[in-house]
Amino acid sequence: MNDIDEYTELIDQRLRSYYEAISKEARTYHPFIGDVSAQVGEFLLRRGKRIASCSTLLTYKGYTGKIDDILDVCVGIELYRHGILIHDDLVDRDKQRRGGKAFHRLFAHDDRFGESLAVFYGNILFSQALKTLFESNFDVKCIGKVIELFLDDYKAVNESQTLDLLFEYKEPTVEEWYVMASKRAASLFRVCMLTGAILGGAPAQDLQILEEAAMHVGYSFDIQDDVIGTFASEEQYGRSTDGDILLGKKPLHVIYAYQLANGKEQDELRSIIRAEKVGAEEIDRTREIIKGCGALAKAKETSRDHARKAIELINKTSMSDESKNFFKDFINFVAESLDWYK
Amino acid sequence: MNDIDEYTELIDQRLRSYYEAISKEARTYHPFIGDVSAQVGEFLLRRGKRIASCSTLLTYKGYTGKIDDILDVCVGIELYRHGILIHDDLVDRDKQRRGGKAFHRLFAHDDRFGESLAVFYGNILFSQALKTLFESNFDVKCIGKVIELFLDDYKAVNESQTLDLLFEYKEPTVEEWYVMASKRAASLFRVCMLTGAILGGAPAQDLQILEEAAMHVGYSFDIQDDVIGTFASEEQYGRSTDGDILLGKKPLHVIYAYQLANGKEQDELRSIIRAEKVGAEEIDRTREIIKGCGALAKAKETSRDHARKAIELINKTSMSDESKNFFKDFINFVAESLDWYK
Repeated sequence: MNDIDEYTELIDQRLRSYYEAISKEARTYHPFIGDVSAQVGEFLLRRGKRIASCSTLLTYKGYTGKIDDILDVCVGIELYRHGILIHDDLVDRDKQRRGGKAFHRLFAHDDRFGESLAVFYGNILFSQALKTLFESNFDVKCIGKVIELFLDDYKAVNESQTLDLLFEYKEPTVEEWYVMASKRAASLFRVCMLTGAILGGAPAQDLQILEEAAMHVGYSFDIQDDVIGTFASEEQYGRSTDGDILLGKKPLHVIYAYQLANGKEQDELRSIIRAEKVGAEEIDRTREIIKGCGALAKAKETSRDHARKAIELINKTSMSDESKNFFKDFINFVAESLDWYK
Repeated sequence: MNDIDEYTELIDQRLRSYYEAISKEARTYHPFIGDVSAQVGEFLLRRGKRIASCSTLLTYKGYTGKIDDILDVCVGIELYRHGILIHDDLVDRDKQRRGGKAFHRLFAHDDRFGESLAVFYGNILFSQALKTLFESNFDVKCIGKVIELFLDDYKAVNESQTLDLLFEYKEPTVEEWYVMASKRAASLFRVCMLTGAILGGAPAQDLQILEEAAMHVGYSFDIQDDVIGTFASEEQYGRSTDGDILLGKKPLHVIYAYQLANGKEQDELRSIIRAEKVGAEEIDRTREIIKGCGALAKAKETSRDHARKAIELINKTSMSDESKNFFKDFINFVAESLDWYK
């Protein structure tokens, strides 16, 4: 995972120049739009690993040996991803994002002002992301295919968020969870990897393999992300890990707990998860039940299983070893980080 | 304005089949997504004139004499426009839209559920709109140009809404109002008319003229829309016309009033528009001041002036007479309806 810092730096440089240009242009018609554009730029440039755009970069490099041409597309991917995050944080009422305030909390006046700007700038980022793809130097037909991927994924992600929200009010089956998850991280990795592969001229056979691999990477990542979001310490996680339980979210480890816990524990779990207000002790009790009945272990095993399948598939492609190793390292990093949260 | 009903019916038929297919497909992966898709379809199919998509249809017909090929693109335009309306109603906390509940008020559970779905389905409509354009049978290069128009307009519309919101908290100049308005109806008419013209193979010279004409149509329409939104009776308007004043919006007639009213009236106007809570009498008093100082008359005259310029420009194009007449009728309809609200 060393190279990723180097690639992240390259993508960040492009993002920085992109936002300098964007906010300069916006200032020509209205100072406030110029200011907000600059704030969006700062929001995007907060420190963090650029897993999504690095996946595109490394897939592209895996077929071409080059990276220069793909950097503007990586900017597009970061615009895309952050537009989704801004809407996501708004809807989930998250207060923090990557060491700073969530986007909808960055503005003066009142809550409605910030929340409305979050709607508008999530939209603008999606529009800019597609525009960036259009303006890249790749062949029009290839870019057309890539843009269709983004359009399908944007619909999918928004349907996934709809289901994620619906599941706060009902108990989904494992199958329903997979429908939701197939449209979330799995779908994002699919777009990121296929974008790199299509633009890098990967053989048709590899596109199929990568599509499947990306789905497994996404499932593995999603399950882990939910585990961390509930079982990491607040110190490790950077913000409270009570949020998912308080909102009544249904990550895979909760769905498994509804299957594996005994009747009494299930009732207890339901009453806490459904309650409007719950205290710290009750939240700890849900963690205890999820662990005690084996649901946490089963979720981790499912995540590891997807990780194994992803690695097998990636090995079958004709990508360069450097790119294969990047994905294998990343997948192992995800799988291993499951051990940190016992 | 007779033909518009016939064209509206044709577009509605396409929209209906589109949503039948969309919700059927959604049901294959999750019943709730199927249900919501059907509700989105019903929302789009509420009775109303389809000015935006008819503008595209008539421009296209004006250069080709045909309409069949453009109908799917008209569906895309309606998807696009309604996605924006859903976000707009959410942010402005509008309760009603075209004779029914605003989209964010259509759902069970709680406010957060409906409001979140409004964010997600506004997004999905934009994605579907662009997808529809991709899937039309037009030449890839032409469609590429059209999609870029949509991407630019989507950014513009969202910036316009940002400024519209900002203006609730400050007093914009006439120039600032035009920056905001240039990105709202003006920009939408520009997209609608240019889409029809580009796909209809209009000569380059006409594209330039239509672009300018569309901006004037938009300004004329916007000013009138704001006048109606404040000065129509509740019966005529279909919902309360106090909303803009209550939110502290700054339509052109208010900006003019800040220039034309005497000092005492200006202070009165400011204190009502800035106040958190105002009664029916005070709202009527703002109407009185805006009328009394000549600001309403000036706004109407500005709208008529844009209407005249639009008609002059449209006459210069090589569109068919039927299409020219459609736009002239529409523009005159806008201009004349200004007389209804004295």
